[in-house]
Amino acid sequence: MAKRIEPKLVKGMRDQLGAQLRQRRAMTATISTVFERFGFTPLETPALEFVETLTGAKAGETGQRIYTWSHEEDGVELGLRFDLTVPLARFVAAHPEVRRPFKRYQTGSVFRVDKPGAGRFREFTQFDIDVVGTPSMLADAEIMVAMATALRELGLPEHSILWNHRGILNAALNKSGVEPKRATAVIRVLDKADKIGHDGVLAELGDGRVDGESGARIEGLGLPTSQIEGIAGFLAIEAGSDDALVDAVRAHLMGVKGAADPIREMEDLREYLRALGENGDSVRFDPRLARGMDYYTGPIFEATLDALPEYGSIMGGGRYNELVSRFSSEQLPAVGASIGVDRLLAALSQLKGSDERPSVTDVLVTTMDKKLLPQYLALVQELRAAGLNAEIYLKPKVRIGDQLRYASDWDIPFAVIMGSDEMRAGRVTVKDLAAGKAAASAIENRNQWVEERPGQFDIDRAHLIAKLKELSA
Amino acid sequence: MAKRIEPKLVKGMRDQLGAQLRQRRAMTATISTVFERFGFTPLETPALEFVETLTGAKAGETGQRIYTWSHEEDGVELGLRFDLTVPLARFVAAHPEVRRPFKRYQTGSVFRVDKPGAGRFREFTQFDIDVVGTPSMLADAEIMVAMATALRELGLPEHSILWNHRGILNAALNKSGVEPKRATAVIRVLDKADKIGHDGVLAELGDGRVDGESGARIEGLGLPTSQIEGIAGFLAIEAGSDDALVDAVRAHLMGVKGAADPIREMEDLREYLRALGENGDSVRFDPRLARGMDYYTGPIFEATLDALPEYGSIMGGGRYNELVSRFSSEQLPAVGASIGVDRLLAALSQLKGSDERPSVTDVLVTTMDKKLLPQYLALVQELRAAGLNAEIYLKPKVRIGDQLRYASDWDIPFAVIMGSDEMRAGRVTVKDLAAGKAAASAIENRNQWVEERPGQFDIDRAHLIAKLKELSA
Repeated sequence: MAKRIEPKLVKGMRDQLGAQLRQRRAMTATISTVFERFGFTPLETPALEFVETLTGAKAGETGQRIYTWSHEEDGVELGLRFDLTVPLARFVAAHPEVRRPFKRYQTGSVFRVDKPGAGRFREFTQFDIDVVGTPSMLADAEIMVAMATALRELGLPEHSILWNHRGILNAALNKSGVEPKRATAVIRVLDKADKIGHDGVLAELGDGRVDGESGARIEGLGLPTSQIEGIAGFLAIEAGSDDALVDAVRAHLMGVKGAADPIREMEDLREYLRALGENGDSVRFDPRLARGMDYYTGPIFEATLDALPEYGSIMGGGRYNELVSRFSSEQLPAVGASIGVDRLLAALSQLKGSDERPSVTDVLVTTMDKKLLPQYLALVQELRAAGLNAEIYLKPKVRIGDQLRYASDWDIPFAVIMGSDEMRAGRVTVKDLAAGKAAASAIENRNQWVEERPGQFDIDRAHLIAKLKELSA
Repeated sequence: MAKRIEPKLVKGMRDQLGAQLRQRRAMTATISTVFERFGFTPLETPALEFVETLTGAKAGETGQRIYTWSHEEDGVELGLRFDLTVPLARFVAAHPEVRRPFKRYQTGSVFRVDKPGAGRFREFTQFDIDVVGTPSMLADAEIMVAMATALRELGLPEHSILWNHRGILNAALNKSGVEPKRATAVIRVLDKADKIGHDGVLAELGDGRVDGESGARIEGLGLPTSQIEGIAGFLAIEAGSDDALVDAVRAHLMGVKGAADPIREMEDLREYLRALGENGDSVRFDPRLARGMDYYTGPIFEATLDALPEYGSIMGGGRYNELVSRFSSEQLPAVGASIGVDRLLAALSQLKGSDERPSVTDVLVTTMDKKLLPQYLALVQELRAAGLNAEIYLKPKVRIGDQLRYASDWDIPFAVIMGSDEMRAGRVTVKDLAAGKAAASAIENRNQWVEERPGQFDIDRAHLIAKLKELSA
């Protein structure tokens, strides 16, 4: 006998069973249907890519830590994908024959060597949509509206998709006198507003601050007061409606170098969103929105659920015009968004409750008597043919109590019991394992259900299926 | 500008787009529904496992070559799963609280460092069902019938699921005088019958043979003539029906040491299959069936499509009572089967044809005039609200010819064209890109379709949606 191996999971990994998977499948199907209605085509790419493919500018800049190894047989360095965007860029560059603009959706596992925590895994599911090959704000608008539509069809109408434009932020920093080379650092601080608040942001732009939680001293960027005041002035822009906000931002940035194109794109985007029916309810312009990632070049956006702000961003994205150029000389401006499926699923369960049944079996046929096994098998097939999810208890010579505990553990609502006496009489006993249902059931005539004790009935075999279908419905 | 990276796939990997993925999704959904009707629960496990978990007795014996690496940060050896059975065994051993018998289905990517070829990839999809925790032939029968049902519901009623019992083969070899330690080698030769024929098998059991294709000399096992004659006698057993075949095998092995239990299980399995409605049509006993893998301990089975024997086995499985014991002292006899999803999909496409449309978009709204973009966007949303899959051409200032080529490349059947003249008249032009459809369309009244030239119509905007829905149906 070989040494016994401990059956443990790799750090950051998980197994998923039953209800959770069925919910994810349903969510994925709903989102896919919406994206196909918007004209997106599904793509799947391998889990493995060359390290060189993965660790382009983007990976370096975002600092993703990835699984990599030398595959000595082929003399190559391999790694597991850490997102679905880099593989998309690789695919598009490799397939000039695929007509642009290319609109694809993709869902699958991505892998990151992050610190695991509650709800944070090293293998997790993303669901992305992207449009590659057009600079038009039409694409950005469509992606945001597709996202809003998906959230609505998932039963989450109370959400906020906030958007901004990286060029607007850059122009505001420019107007405040911030040097272009410091813009990224400043934007990363602005991105912390959710966590550290407006005052925290201003402090961290200047001399630094003391972290409220850890008490640690966080060094500031050391911007001069004039620049911080300029940024604060931009962040203070308030207005009643989305249109008024766009007007105010335009007025604030009028004449600033580099502001003209972003302002035009901001206006186009606002117009297109309105034409698509988004009137500033779930999709809203927010000049304060910052996303820390370097590679965004135009609009950026992020979704939160109004009832669950503590979940943070459940979807985010933006325009990235440089990623494909890593692989191709073709000019391929792109925009995309990514849904964090696991987080969205957790949020949906919290808001809507979830079908916690570990199994979807409607009825268990128990086995009382080995001689009757062929009859039990015929019965279970009859139940299946009638469209019920039915199983037979697969281990012979187990006491009926243990068989019912199996039904109970797997939350199977009904168990059929048939011994040789019932067999001869052409009858079966049905146990309704959900006590509540049992109490509610009325006593019917002799050929229908006869209540013997709560939750247990005798029924004519001929009536079994109709009754079970009625009760399972 | 950084050095440009070649956008290439890792050896043995592939991208999948559009129609192919939709077909796989539909297939997976059908199979899942069948397995849930049989009471199986979905499970997902990570792609990554410890090498120690993967390279148990099974991996060693089957000689699977896997991707492995040292993850130095955590000081562990990791690998990618090469099947879905080893992770199941790990899961079951780690979760004694999950009530047995445990019935799960699972689909996902597995990874093997095999030689890639036509239709053979290093990452491919499997779809498995297994029952863990019962020695009863009820489980084996249910798995085979679930497989037959899945194939029928996929529209493949013309298939053969052949089954045998490893213990029957062992008893036959024992009766022929083959030493137990040589049984596995002999069974591997028997497993080649499909490729090398009956005479080839007998030759390879003896002095060896010359391979018909390569002309190479294949060494034989060197069994004595008496043993080969004994095996040939077993392989020659013929009978009219499944029941007669079971009788003949029982008679052949009567009194042979070790034959009693396998004979009883063979009889049970035959009885249970019949009770489940399988009368020897698609599920058939075949005492010649051998499967080379070492770890099978009881029944074995394999499915082929009658019309496509060249595809070989599209599903296979058997009983493996030792795998879980690698991880646990709990006695957990198990039986399972695995579908090669990619191969089955290829077969299904060949038999049934396939929806080759790269996109499921029904209609493309073209953009003629930048000033009308809001109108185009409103129109595309109206089409979507009516349940059509609709997209707007996302790149402005592109000639209409190129926009129509986009529709044609993605096989979008209809394109809507609306310039300022049409706009004012409250009309749109619809191009029916499938010429056949265009020819068949009748000229209707002024407020309906007006045929101008084949495949192009003017229509009142108010009638657009109804007409498109009718044509797309």
